[in-house]
Amino acid sequence: MASDTTTGPAGGGEDSADPSAETFMTRRATVPALEELLYRPLPVLDHGFVRVIDYMGDDAAVVQGARVSYGRGTKKVSQDRGLIFYLMRHRHTSPFELCEIKFHIKLPIFVARQWIRHRTANVNEISGRYSILDREFYVPDAAHLAAQSSLNRQGRGEVLQGEEAREVLDMLRADAATNYEHYERMLNERDTGDIIDPSRQGLARELARINLTLSTYTQWYWKIDLHNLMHFLSLRAEGHAQYEIRAYADVMLDVLARWMPITYEAFREYRMGGLHLSATGLAIVRRMLAGEAVTQETSGLSKREWTELMASLEAGGSAGA
Amino acid sequence: MASDTTTGPAGGGEDSADPSAETFMTRRATVPALEELLYRPLPVLDHGFVRVIDYMGDDAAVVQGARVSYGRGTKKVSQDRGLIFYLMRHRHTSPFELCEIKFHIKLPIFVARQWIRHRTANVNEISGRYSILDREFYVPDAAHLAAQSSLNRQGRGEVLQGEEAREVLDMLRADAATNYEHYERMLNERDTGDIIDPSRQGLARELARINLTLSTYTQWYWKIDLHNLMHFLSLRAEGHAQYEIRAYADVMLDVLARWMPITYEAFREYRMGGLHLSATGLAIVRRMLAGEAVTQETSGLSKREWTELMASLEAGGSAGA
Amino acid sequence: MASDTTTGPAGGGEDSADPSAETFMTRRATVPALEELLYRPLPVLDHGFVRVIDYMGDDAAVVQGARVSYGRGTKKVSQDRGLIFYLMRHRHTSPFELCEIKFHIKLPIFVARQWIRHRTANVNEISGRYSILDREFYVPDAAHLAAQSSLNRQGRGEVLQGEEAREVLDMLRADAATNYEHYERMLNERDTGDIIDPSRQGLARELARINLTLSTYTQWYWKIDLHNLMHFLSLRAEGHAQYEIRAYADVMLDVLARWMPITYEAFREYRMGGLHLSATGLAIVRRMLAGEAVTQETSGLSKREWTELMASLEAGGSAGA
Amino acid sequence: MASDTTTGPAGGGEDSADPSAETFMTRRATVPALEELLYRPLPVLDHGFVRVIDYMGDDAAVVQGARVSYGRGTKKVSQDRGLIFYLMRHRHTSPFELCEIKFHIKLPIFVARQWIRHRTANVNEISGRYSILDREFYVPDAAHLAAQSSLNRQGRGEVLQGEEAREVLDMLRADAATNYEHYERMLNERDTGDIIDPSRQGLARELARINLTLSTYTQWYWKIDLHNLMHFLSLRAEGHAQYEIRAYADVMLDVLARWMPITYEAFREYRMGGLHLSATGLAIVRRMLAGEAVTQETSGLSKREWTELMASLEAGGSAGA
Repeated sequence: MASDTTTGPAGGGEDSADPSAETFMTRRATVPALEELLYRPLPVLDHGFVRVIDYMGDDAAVVQGARVSYGRGTKKVSQDRGLIFYLMRHRHTSPFELCEIKFHIKLPIFVARQWIRHRTANVNEISGRYSILDREFYVPDAAHLAAQSSLNRQGRGEVLQGEEAREVLDMLRADAATNYEHYERMLNERDTGDIIDPSRQGLARELARINLTLSTYTQWYWKIDLHNLMHFLSLRAEGHAQYEIRAYADVMLDVLARWMPITYEAFREYRMGGLHLSATGLAIVRRMLAGEAVTQETSGLSKREWTELMASLEAGGSAGA
Repeated sequence: MASDTTTGPAGGGEDSADPSAETFMTRRATVPALEELLYRPLPVLDHGFVRVIDYMGDDAAVVQGARVSYGRGTKKVSQDRGLIFYLMRHRHTSPFELCEIKFHIKLPIFVARQWIRHRTANVNEISGRYSILDREFYVPDAAHLAAQSSLNRQGRGEVLQGEEAREVLDMLRADAATNYEHYERMLNERDTGDIIDPSRQGLARELARINLTLSTYTQWYWKIDLHNLMHFLSLRAEGHAQYEIRAYADVMLDVLARWMPITYEAFREYRMGGLHLSATGLAIVRRMLAGEAVTQETSGLSKREWTELMASLEAGGSAGA
Repeated sequence: MASDTTTGPAGGGEDSADPSAETFMTRRATVPALEELLYRPLPVLDHGFVRVIDYMGDDAAVVQGARVSYGRGTKKVSQDRGLIFYLMRHRHTSPFELCEIKFHIKLPIFVARQWIRHRTANVNEISGRYSILDREFYVPDAAHLAAQSSLNRQGRGEVLQGEEAREVLDMLRADAATNYEHYERMLNERDTGDIIDPSRQGLARELARINLTLSTYTQWYWKIDLHNLMHFLSLRAEGHAQYEIRAYADVMLDVLARWMPITYEAFREYRMGGLHLSATGLAIVRRMLAGEAVTQETSGLSKREWTELMASLEAGGSAGA
Repeated sequence: MASDTTTGPAGGGEDSADPSAETFMTRRATVPALEELLYRPLPVLDHGFVRVIDYMGDDAAVVQGARVSYGRGTKKVSQDRGLIFYLMRHRHTSPFELCEIKFHIKLPIFVARQWIRHRTANVNEISGRYSILDREFYVPDAAHLAAQSSLNRQGRGEVLQGEEAREVLDMLRADAATNYEHYERMLNERDTGDIIDPSRQGLARELARINLTLSTYTQWYWKIDLHNLMHFLSLRAEGHAQYEIRAYADVMLDVLARWMPITYEAFREYRMGGLHLSATGLAIVRRMLAGEAVTQETSGLSKREWTELMASLEAGGSAGA
């Protein structure tokens, strides 16, 4: 790590300046509520975190970008709010792209593999070719140890109980630990940097790591603009997303609420909290509002779609994409 | 403009807060040399400008991103410098993508059309559907009024002289002015907002604007990450780029030098100032260094490529892609 | 144009092979209904066109991509159809990204400027630095010569009549023609290639073109994947889009219907034909379905939003985002 | 797998049509040399493959796109060749972006994680949430079982020998097998679809998979344009890339040579086979060509950079970035 050519993670010791201690004067848009959170690891899952490293812009910067203007927002907050809601409603995405946020994230590799499908972001991950990865792996909480859903090929069903649950947890823990131990033996090096057996050469890091499980934690810096962050959150803070990535999205929703309170509200109103009706769904709602008693049979929808639509339209129904 | 739903440019009067007057405390990476420049229009061409609106990161943030680290850079500037040069030399682009800059730019439409080909950026342009565009258009300085190059189908040759130059300037000026005047007549509205003839309806803005010339100025907010900014500059601050866009790139190079002094130096060393040898070009250099007297005939290059290569390799030669 | 290094448009004469005459054997997915259309210019506006140059994939290729499978689709069309509708409903966009289409398009510059905002596409435009642009410019049909909307700052209102319409058309035509004539005079060259005055040098093409109006036609090759094509069409074939770009989107919708009949149907069902309810809008619909008489005052919506929602929910209402 | 809503991989049995058996008539650009390869798995590593599924364009289509022309290429191949070399030399990338290729690839997960960093491509991977992954994992050939390089923190050194090699291979094999066996036990289902213990529920697939090693094989469809394919290959077919991903890049280079013979040649001449000189490197070459005896001390380069430069400039030196 002492090398000046590594792109791997710096161990704690070498990192010189603790950035959280310094303050500077700036003329840039600044958000006090987010400054408080800066650099602080917000815990997620058993060993993960989300840390906000930097940000660019605030609600007024969205307004300023939308107007291509010389000043910042307007005197009246109500006007800024009206414009932001208008932009969100009409899917004018460019002004939201003019703000940016940068995170340091620690997450299991299987979550990282879902995450990286979102291509419109910048990322730098620690490299298992340069560095020895930490001995940390995700083991689900018993409450999240669910069976395969019998309804949804992609989801979870009931929580496992008793003996079966115990065995699953044992296997997950033991295999991850064994594989990590063998990783060190192949490397011939501990994560402390100690050589295990001086008579051995040690396997190249880029090869030894292939023995690790997908539950192993990795880390990256991840930077994204506000529009694409909201797109990411609308997909990953939503019920169909796997619980583990949703845990990250939920923390980031809170970050968004602090960073951009007005934009966040508009996002909840027009993106997270609404309902998209298909052409057939819209026709059904029109018929129902006109007084017709529509049934699944006369609706033109499949059973599954009909059930979903009715659930969404119920008085206390849960909204959602 | 009074509408809270416009995305067009705000006229001066409504822009409430002058952002240049306010300062804030922040714990984010801050670059004093760039803070000085913030919000100040840096003039380009006859009516254009580049204004830095916001930025994210500094040289130490590149290092921090490369190391996916908890702290900021290292204690020793020499180590940061070594890593940045290493990253640039080996085209590790991800750490540079973790910094970002936002500009407000005023530029002629024909320049905007070249500029927008760079897709990896965020942009919001004033809308000619909402707003009346300003009465400003680019007229080249006499020194830049060049003939078509006889050597290069894409370049400029000698500067036009006398009568021909005068006529060209007259036509450019007169046509732009006439077209703008007719634009106002079709709109039935001055750029001051005054109605010209109350008995008329006025053509929709989205149609009237099609009468304007490509020399008309437009404005946009443009945000880009550091890696893609350097890619843009390597193409647009270079000899083959049209003079008018180069004028913007040159100003932005100065901004880069202030913002990221070490990265800027590495960029000049490895990207702007070097030479890319083709396979054949490399073979020629090897033969010459081994003492062989290579000629165009024995080189395997066309005349044009040979001449270019020899010019680049001359003692006082000009470097460049 | 005779140069082998131009990237400008080839004049008719040099284009050797007429591609429409040749047929080949292929084992790739092939769509007979689209083959018929290949290379044929589909007229748009007064001088524009859309030509399909190439395509990759068909409805079965969406299925094959979704399954990451070794074969092509399934035996039963109904299964393919079910999967395509499922993918569209749940916004699984990746399989649609695995198909691609390439167009040759002729369009006015002001339309090109709106079009190019869609960044997830590949484009190569004829270059006004290399080539002399054609003497063709867009003049709206009298039926589309609309006044500025008094309701919508971005739209068109009533069609202009009588004297005002005549004057507008005269100005648009005369200015475009004058500017083009001066373009040739500055170049000192006709679009036929004839030199006008041998004693003159001629202004560089990259400068002379700045005198042209935004109504001048340009051309480009434009290639996009199926998912992003549908995103483009959902924004540009829609009521808020400017009429002139909508004219292109409408032609491309027909192309889509031929190329991908099942995907097109799913697109109409879930994307073009539906309605997005906001959180508040959904709450209102729930209250109405539960029998409550909701009014604008009790709705929580602004007057404009209320009017829009009620129009969308009316029995014969027009769907659309 | 029988579901019509899965996006997982289809098992062999359900894949109806074997695409390799059918031929169609088309008027699209067609490349007989690539048609031969279509759908055929080209083996890579111990269980991987690359299959070409579809392609769009040929060398003449690059020319056609560059000219934005109505026809296809020119009569004379020499002119097409000249233009393609010109485009490559001057980094005019747009015409190359107008061609596209689609692959089906089977690869270990740790290779997939390097691969996916190339964002300008479309990808659909089999989902471990829907489907049970195959019992296949990568075990390196003894010849590729290398020690960590002592020179390069990111590379491989000497090949491991004797006892150490044997142990490493045993651990890699045994751990992958054990983890897979436990994966099935947690799922309570064999990859044949048989239930193991009817009294158990079985863990959700999305959770059980986290126990698999990074050496496990996955599959995806991957589609990319020609320009970005060459960018990918220039980075991944190169000496600094990890051997395992280079094995894929090498096979894809052969595919490129068949698909686009002229473009491939230009790519080797200007991209793969050349040398990029830094500003300092160029100055050194100039001094040497002018007869000066430059040494490392007078060169301005570090020892490492000097050694690299001298190696590249030697008569029999290996070219390459």
